[in-house]
Amino acid sequence: MTTGTGREAVEKILAQAAAEGRSSLTAPEGRAVCEAYDIPTPAERLATSADEAVAQAQEIGLPVVLKIVSPDILHKTEAGGVLVGLRTAEQVAEGYATILANAKAYNENAVIVGVQVQQMLTTGQEVIIGSVTDQTFGKIVAFGLGGVLVEVLKDVTFRLAPTSEAEALSMVDGIAAAEILNGVRGAEAVDKAALTGIITRLSQLVTDFPQLAEVDLNPVLATAGGATAVDVRILVDPEAAKEPVRFTQDEILASMNRIMKPAAIAVIGASAEDGKIGNSVMKNLVNGGYAGEIYPINPKASEILDRKAYASIADVPGDVDVAVFAIPAKFVSAALEEAGAKGVAGAILIPSGFGETGEIELQNQVVAIARKHGVRILGPNIYGYYYTPENLSATFCTPYDVKGGVALSSQSGGIGMAILGFSRSAGMGVSSIVGVGNKADIDEDDLLTFFENDDNTQLVAMHLEDLKDGRSFAETAKRVSAKKPVIVLKAGRTSQGAKAASSHTGALAGNDKVYDDILRQSGVIRAPGLNDMLEYARGIPLLPTPKGENVVIITGAGGSGVLLSDACVDNGLSLMEIPDDLDVAFRKFIPPFGAAGNPVDITGGEPPSTYRNTIALGLSDERIHSLILGYWHTIVTPPMVFAELVVDVVEEFRRKGIHKPVVASLSGDVEVEAASDHLYANGIVAYPYTTEKPVAVLGAKYRWARSAGLLG
Amino acid sequence: MTTGTGREAVEKILAQAAAEGRSSLTAPEGRAVCEAYDIPTPAERLATSADEAVAQAQEIGLPVVLKIVSPDILHKTEAGGVLVGLRTAEQVAEGYATILANAKAYNENAVIVGVQVQQMLTTGQEVIIGSVTDQTFGKIVAFGLGGVLVEVLKDVTFRLAPTSEAEALSMVDGIAAAEILNGVRGAEAVDKAALTGIITRLSQLVTDFPQLAEVDLNPVLATAGGATAVDVRILVDPEAAKEPVRFTQDEILASMNRIMKPAAIAVIGASAEDGKIGNSVMKNLVNGGYAGEIYPINPKASEILDRKAYASIADVPGDVDVAVFAIPAKFVSAALEEAGAKGVAGAILIPSGFGETGEIELQNQVVAIARKHGVRILGPNIYGYYYTPENLSATFCTPYDVKGGVALSSQSGGIGMAILGFSRSAGMGVSSIVGVGNKADIDEDDLLTFFENDDNTQLVAMHLEDLKDGRSFAETAKRVSAKKPVIVLKAGRTSQGAKAASSHTGALAGNDKVYDDILRQSGVIRAPGLNDMLEYARGIPLLPTPKGENVVIITGAGGSGVLLSDACVDNGLSLMEIPDDLDVAFRKFIPPFGAAGNPVDITGGEPPSTYRNTIALGLSDERIHSLILGYWHTIVTPPMVFAELVVDVVEEFRRKGIHKPVVASLSGDVEVEAASDHLYANGIVAYPYTTEKPVAVLGAKYRWARSAGLLG
Repeated sequence: MTTGTGREAVEKILAQAAAEGRSSLTAPEGRAVCEAYDIPTPAERLATSADEAVAQAQEIGLPVVLKIVSPDILHKTEAGGVLVGLRTAEQVAEGYATILANAKAYNENAVIVGVQVQQMLTTGQEVIIGSVTDQTFGKIVAFGLGGVLVEVLKDVTFRLAPTSEAEALSMVDGIAAAEILNGVRGAEAVDKAALTGIITRLSQLVTDFPQLAEVDLNPVLATAGGATAVDVRILVDPEAAKEPVRFTQDEILASMNRIMKPAAIAVIGASAEDGKIGNSVMKNLVNGGYAGEIYPINPKASEILDRKAYASIADVPGDVDVAVFAIPAKFVSAALEEAGAKGVAGAILIPSGFGETGEIELQNQVVAIARKHGVRILGPNIYGYYYTPENLSATFCTPYDVKGGVALSSQSGGIGMAILGFSRSAGMGVSSIVGVGNKADIDEDDLLTFFENDDNTQLVAMHLEDLKDGRSFAETAKRVSAKKPVIVLKAGRTSQGAKAASSHTGALAGNDKVYDDILRQSGVIRAPGLNDMLEYARGIPLLPTPKGENVVIITGAGGSGVLLSDACVDNGLSLMEIPDDLDVAFRKFIPPFGAAGNPVDITGGEPPSTYRNTIALGLSDERIHSLILGYWHTIVTPPMVFAELVVDVVEEFRRKGIHKPVVASLSGDVEVEAASDHLYANGIVAYPYTTEKPVAVLGAKYRWARSAGLLG
Repeated sequence: MTTGTGREAVEKILAQAAAEGRSSLTAPEGRAVCEAYDIPTPAERLATSADEAVAQAQEIGLPVVLKIVSPDILHKTEAGGVLVGLRTAEQVAEGYATILANAKAYNENAVIVGVQVQQMLTTGQEVIIGSVTDQTFGKIVAFGLGGVLVEVLKDVTFRLAPTSEAEALSMVDGIAAAEILNGVRGAEAVDKAALTGIITRLSQLVTDFPQLAEVDLNPVLATAGGATAVDVRILVDPEAAKEPVRFTQDEILASMNRIMKPAAIAVIGASAEDGKIGNSVMKNLVNGGYAGEIYPINPKASEILDRKAYASIADVPGDVDVAVFAIPAKFVSAALEEAGAKGVAGAILIPSGFGETGEIELQNQVVAIARKHGVRILGPNIYGYYYTPENLSATFCTPYDVKGGVALSSQSGGIGMAILGFSRSAGMGVSSIVGVGNKADIDEDDLLTFFENDDNTQLVAMHLEDLKDGRSFAETAKRVSAKKPVIVLKAGRTSQGAKAASSHTGALAGNDKVYDDILRQSGVIRAPGLNDMLEYARGIPLLPTPKGENVVIITGAGGSGVLLSDACVDNGLSLMEIPDDLDVAFRKFIPPFGAAGNPVDITGGEPPSTYRNTIALGLSDERIHSLILGYWHTIVTPPMVFAELVVDVVEEFRRKGIHKPVVASLSGDVEVEAASDHLYANGIVAYPYTTEKPVAVLGAKYRWARSAGLLG
């Protein structure tokens, strides 16, 4: 996007700075870098006479700033070498003379190169545009309103660099105070194209020159006619250009396929003794129904759980894909050398006692051994992993066998156990549960790549506390989430403040806001809490993808209707404005004092047929894309009668090929619990005693469908 | 707070405006009103010569604005009669001459009174202070940052007028951008006392003169040395002074005590026929175990459910406290006349067909009959009400008999049924459940007053869509919440935008923000959703009131610890900074690689004793005020072992008189569900598969304890 000349100009400046060992560019260098990438800066000229200064000022446009240019005068202001706000030709001419006189008086031997005539921008909306090198995501760009407010209200947004024009526009439109840029109180709207242009060109600049560690364009003054970077501050750091080492997608898939669908597994430290981890792992593999070869490795046993045991993995007759380590940390290195020599694809390191207890060196040593042999490590410090299509429970927890499309991972064992318990309790169909623990090697990125290509997985939900390589994750998640929903529970979101940083943008780049923006940019659905992640994972795959934004609430309880409407607003859902003909059609089925509109309030005490007729209308009318049902327990339509009629009518339309998301909130006595279960079991996401949860799940589905571009 | 002279001055101005039939005050009148209440406005003088103007300008302080004063020149600017930004004595002298010349040229016959010399404020932070007459809350005051941002970001806050200085300060400190007022980027802090002074005096002004419908002080310029209302706009409306009619507290209690604890109940429309509402009500009264007299009223029956039936309530031999109406709307008026004549305290109007179906006139007629007889109406359009201490289930739903301290009310029948179902499912001990429906008469206010004085009630939770008399509710809630937690689920919070209003403050007074601020001002805990209201109601009474802000997390799963910390921040809880000696004490019990600090991470795989020891330390150390436990399911400490040890150690400290709130999040396989139930049954608020809920309940308890002033 930038001419070769532009790149060359920047290269030259950076070479100069590097030669001088500088970590920052001078203001003129910064401006030159901007100009090379078509980022406007205030116009400036060098005048060598008062007449020339006047002519230049008139060409640039008044008012102007005059500054002495002399290699011998470093402190220009102190020397009386700066005059601001010169508004007329006379003031410029006089100013020129004054500056020269002041300079002479300050240092009579100074060599005077001339006087800089600089455009003085007096109007425009202050914004800040910048770039920093984030430790997780690498080059990111920032946009916010300038001045006091960006500091106080932290109204700033981030994207991975480079950004497209569309992404840059989503930044400009995405800050809380965006309306200001559209012109309020009769002010003119600013030139957003100029702002997005600066953002994209800056993002390209730092991509082309990754040694640009931090760039502040602050303020950028935006007007109806354009935008200009008034101050430019650039920090350089060769470290900022370092890229993490990455595996190719093919490499990842080759390993992950062998790990997730192994033909043979060795359990290093297998034990016949109850209560030992090596015993639990063996039992879970065997009792879980895993059909591949299982080789217990234990020098002191000849047989474990009716399987022949081997003293070393080297003694195993056939190939081994996965070695599960159930031995103390101190023995892992030696055993891993043997497993590596045997050619395993994956080493599942259950033991703790590595990085998490400060044994970082031991962990690095283990990774080095794995790399040498081309082995991928899962863990250490994990409960193991499940892959239900292979009946594989390679874990010391309990087996899990409810098959389904949800793949989950957790960085923490505790959260992994919560996933397991919730899944079992809710009967959630799962393809995989994986503990990543210390993430010494395999991380969410590798898992996503596998799940992307795994036909058994329809949705991925991940608990994580950090990302080893956020850029790679973001890029992978963007690709995957276009096909399958990716849910992330990012823990630690509130704990970290802004890191110490030398640039303004850097100071604004508080950890969580960056995560939040970039996860969204990647199409990820962020869950606000653990239970939300679990409920999203459970519900989203059951709901068909909606074809559009029109949501209609049909409720037997006006009160639920109001709360469901609140929840729609909270979850970014659009309550459809009901067209007149549709209103008439609904009114045919509801009592005269019922309220059509949206919510459609059928009123309490109505028979099953009223629910049925209105729901059928909602399903049949093509302008309606999703239904939210509010049920009110009455004698006339008891809970299970409601549940059965809903399942019946939804099924009827499914048979006709009409699939719309239907969620339900059930208000009533305890019988609504069984009714909710019946609905859920039939693909209608339903909950008792809450108006929030069903709408939150529908909202999450919509967030995914929107970002995947499926709403049309 | 204002001198009699001040009041008199305002009275005079308002009399003048009223005499002229004006609905707004002129700018000078507005300024005079402000001055009468010590609200500073820019200084101004009237000059009749250039010299005088110069002297006055120097006295006021330059720069100044000059304005022609002439009864014959209305459009001053058009006449060239306004000059702004005069910065020197010469400019003022010249300006005076210019204005006079312009005025002469504009209208040579104009009578020139002189030239107004007005202080021109050029620096200071723009804020807006105002007052409007809210349809729910009456006189409220508003405070926000002025300029573009208050409009775009709606960063504004409200309180009931009159406000105390402390409340006014909570407004100034309570806006999102409050930090700006403290001085950022080296700016001086503004004089907050000056701002709070203006807020309190304005709030007194509108309280003293309720016909001041709307007052805008916009902008007020605040500096380090004071604050000045630059523009004043005042709208007057005699309607704005109207006060709703209210019962006294004694009147409310006299009626409510008879209604909630009746000695005799008549069921008007009692029926022996299954499926009829009049039959359900009779059954629930009888089967619910109500011990008072029950009189079925039905002209066509001699006996219903073994009780002698009467043709009319007039025929009942003894006194009747409550009449439950189970007859169609159209028969209510006549029956209510009879019930009124009989001297009932309360008429429970179950039937619908009143205001909610547009029959407003019928509803008003019924209220008029009730007023005539001194009868209070509950409803119409309700399921009825429960009061468990009397075994009273005056409803067509099902009886409820789990006694406890939670009183609940709902405006909607659907929500009432959700309350009933949730309560039964969770085994929540309830004192009362009341449907208020159309609130033709009895509203939340009356209920609060009763529950305040009801020893059987420890907490009140209310679902409401609106308030009939928000000011009365707020005042009552403030009084009650100092003794018992009051939880409110305000539905419809997102549906209403700002109402059409002629003042700036009025336009900002969007319905929900006003509710939010004033409910908080009243000490009410606002629940974000239905399920939150129910969980708060269930959990808060079980938790002892904490003695301070120091919360400590003790967790077996590091991952849960991080999520629990997130939840603490979300819920405004303070994670205690662990002092060194306490850190040492915790470290004695946890493995060397465990993390003390807060969360205290005891690490996974620890035996029950580690949980026990650390929890005991948390309970015994007086500096710790609340505990959040994170459990991780292991073989070493199975779920029920954990639950039992926690109950055991908490009981041990209870016996020693040490009561601290303890909540728990359990991560694990399905056994954690029973373990959570066991904990909950023993007063430890515990949930499986969620780190958010237990912390949210603790957070709600803290919000209440803080506002009730119990944290010390």
